[in-house]
Amino acid sequence: MSHDPNCIFCKIVAGEIPSRKVYEDEELYAFHDIRPQAPVHFMIIPKQHVASLDEATAEHAPLLGRILTLAPQLAREQGATNGFRTVINTGPDGGQEVYHLHVHVMGGPRPWKVG
Amino acid sequence: MSHDPNCIFCKIVAGEIPSRKVYEDEELYAFHDIRPQAPVHFMIIPKQHVASLDEATAEHAPLLGRILTLAPQLAREQGATNGFRTVINTGPDGGQEVYHLHVHVMGGPRPWKVG
Repeated sequence: MSHDPNCIFCKIVAGEIPSRKVYEDEELYAFHDIRPQAPVHFMIIPKQHVASLDEATAEHAPLLGRILTLAPQLAREQGATNGFRTVINTGPDGGQEVYHLHVHVMGGPRPWKVG
Repeated sequence: MSHDPNCIFCKIVAGEIPSRKVYEDEELYAFHDIRPQAPVHFMIIPKQHVASLDEATAEHAPLLGRILTLAPQLAREQGATNGFRTVINTGPDGGQEVYHLHVHVMGGPRPWKVG
């Protein structure tokens, strides 16, 4: 599995940087955002290092699909029982801050908004 | 393929309601948002009727993955050459307006923001 020793999310997966874990399996890891923008706000990431959605190829499609089908289950478990939003930021205009592909999952009672 | 005769996006796929097409293949359809929130703003949808991400199961994972890996290609073709954002709204708190699963793809020069 590819791993970037300088990547903060790879370090979180490896346990070298602490995180508040939401979920983990062989391929995926989910943890709470340290700057939540909604009552429920966590991220789902692939354990393997993929820099962004721009770097994803057809071989990553099943993994990306698994992330999206996992999102509703985890959102409910975290208390977002009335809906949620999933966001992927890619590149500078997309507002991507960490270059390890991550899917934001946000939910809970409104108002909250994503800038 | 499941089809809901009352669904506006099923009608768009069927050509019964006009749309500005971005892309089409056997499984997927993409078209410009009629209320763009960014210089580039289109949606990618499965042709089959899936009401929301909440209704997606493991069998939909490959299809969802295909949508996400198609997004960067279409974003670039539409002129979002410096990044983009993908958003899925699910349920009331997620701000979902049309109950046919759709992935928003937004890009182009900032500022623009998603409420």
